Amino acid sequence: MRATVMYSAGDVRIENVPDARPIKPTDAVVTITRACICGSDLWPYKAMEPSETGIIMGHEAIGVVDDVGADVRNLKRGDLVVMPFAYSDSTCAFCHEGLNTSCVHGGFFGNEEIAGAQAEAVRVPLADGTLYVLPVGKDDALMPSLLTLSDVMGTGHHAAVTAKVAPGKTVAVVGDGAVGLCGVIAARRLGAEQIIIMGRHPDRITLAREFGATDVVRERGEEAVERVRELTGGYGVHSVLECVGTEQAMLTSVSIVRAGGGVGRVGVPHYEAIPLAQPTFYNNVTVSGGPAPVRAYIEELLPDVLEGRIEPGRVFDRVVGLEGVPDGYRAMNEREALKVMVKP
Amino acid sequence: MRATVMYSAGDVRIENVPDARPIKPTDAVVTITRACICGSDLWPYKAMEPSETGIIMGHEAIGVVDDVGADVRNLKRGDLVVMPFAYSDSTCAFCHEGLNTSCVHGGFFGNEEIAGAQAEAVRVPLADGTLYVLPVGKDDALMPSLLTLSDVMGTGHHAAVTAKVAPGKTVAVVGDGAVGLCGVIAARRLGAEQIIIMGRHPDRITLAREFGATDVVRERGEEAVERVRELTGGYGVHSVLECVGTEQAMLTSVSIVRAGGGVGRVGVPHYEAIPLAQPTFYNNVTVSGGPAPVRAYIEELLPDVLEGRIEPGRVFDRVVGLEGVPDGYRAMNEREALKVMVKP
Repeated sequence: MRATVMYSAGDVRIENVPDARPIKPTDAVVTITRACICGSDLWPYKAMEPSETGIIMGHEAIGVVDDVGADVRNLKRGDLVVMPFAYSDSTCAFCHEGLNTSCVHGGFFGNEEIAGAQAEAVRVPLADGTLYVLPVGKDDALMPSLLTLSDVMGTGHHAAVTAKVAPGKTVAVVGDGAVGLCGVIAARRLGAEQIIIMGRHPDRITLAREFGATDVVRERGEEAVERVRELTGGYGVHSVLECVGTEQAMLTSVSIVRAGGGVGRVGVPHYEAIPLAQPTFYNNVTVSGGPAPVRAYIEELLPDVLEGRIEPGRVFDRVVGLEGVPDGYRAMNEREALKVMVKP
Repeated sequence: MRATVMYSAGDVRIENVPDARPIKPTDAVVTITRACICGSDLWPYKAMEPSETGIIMGHEAIGVVDDVGADVRNLKRGDLVVMPFAYSDSTCAFCHEGLNTSCVHGGFFGNEEIAGAQAEAVRVPLADGTLYVLPVGKDDALMPSLLTLSDVMGTGHHAAVTAKVAPGKTVAVVGDGAVGLCGVIAARRLGAEQIIIMGRHPDRITLAREFGATDVVRERGEEAVERVRELTGGYGVHSVLECVGTEQAMLTSVSIVRAGGGVGRVGVPHYEAIPLAQPTFYNNVTVSGGPAPVRAYIEELLPDVLEGRIEPGRVFDRVVGLEGVPDGYRAMNEREALKVMVKP
């Protein structure tokens, strides 16, 4: 089968690889109908050390179950499923607490051990616990929005939940990438009154406003902090959705949060320590977040997608076939594309 | 009047100072019947830069209202009151959210601006919002436990609340000082199933066990982390109460918390950044806490004190008059005393 293999920073190739097939009796094989390129894929795209074997990339997908291992109970060939970016058994103590991304038997797609989904097919471990069967056909018009339930919409929602967004609260979203934009949707969905998008890319800002952002802060660093304070009566916001992962973004986040407020981190952290430990203490700031348990959130978010109340699929601004994936990486890395959908 | 004045590290004197008197119409003057020395007073006792004027110390007290300004409505001469370590108007947006320590008009006792309570009397700003009238006489047998509502019991409770302690959870308390011991009481009161006290002072450990600690970890650093993991099936604890404030204590705290768990910081932080930003992210750890809004907690904790369900006053193991305060600092600093009560 054809798959996307990354060998080093900037070196993404579409190659023939061995067909995906069940290895363990709890595995399923899913033929990919939609996948995408993630902002987090750009970290290795910028910095991956050379690898001889390469890595089959991709951790967000929708597809059709093609084969199941002997112990798979809840899935059958032909089911259309969402594949969250982490696999999980959905039965362990952590999964029961809704934290599937800490499943004791779980893990992530698109690394040296587990092949990814920017491919014609993918092997899904712990298929019963991982995959979520969709009640629509494989070419449904809602496919882009449904696809975001595999990562970015669930991740934006996680940022909002861990930042303690609630009705009437003030919110800032740090980062105008696909996750940040889904964070705007999530904040509005949870009843936030003021939603400040922090970014400067005109198309993204326009989309953020359509998703519910009430204010825009284009400044960065100290100026951005001052601007947010101006917009919030000097107090800062109740909730900050940190959707970038750089040290600067985190510094901004803990600087604009109001006393008693929360920062929900979902940007993969490229910093060693959380800054401003003393001011955040004196202000009783909560810092939370991490890899979103998107599997646990599908149940909550799916009805809103199916009934058209949220349209996170609008973050996709480019569609490519599998052969177009390397150029999709380039386009996202150069901020020419916001988020690229892959139709293998 | 007589008061405790700190001039520099180790230099604590009892001196005559001008009598406390109302300055603003919202002030009250309280004649101190009980005060205490706080673990946080030991930070300046170890490191204060020399000051010509000195600082009148103390931020925990019970006393009798002696005088009130013209705008004080809810207090009258003769009322017995608890004085929380922070003053607050109890009417601003933050106070309404239960975060009196971020009151927009509030502040703290025992610093260059606001004199402290290790004295014969203290001026209390925003008296209506700050002071809580007690329904007992000034020599009630419960006085030690009531006194802890001014700080350490409320602070231990805050650590537990911000660390998300709940029925059935596993908890570790980092630090066996008075706050840590009150943290044990708080964790048990909130229904924790396993409470690990991390400390090594035999008397304190004994008291921790009587307060409800189920396990003791005497090790430090890496060994302590391993020991907590052994005690919790390899997972770590749901909730960590960080009651020390050193970088090492914080490092231990974020190392022993379970995925999805919380660290409640109440030790005054002597570190610049919160360590292990990446593991805490991947484990979806929440870091919260700060100066406890003890004023907001009195209502909840007082009935348990009055009805004898909790006995936080047992943390006091020494009582001194005002002239004995300097030796009280020495004794607490040398860990000869756990917590010193002052009867001026």
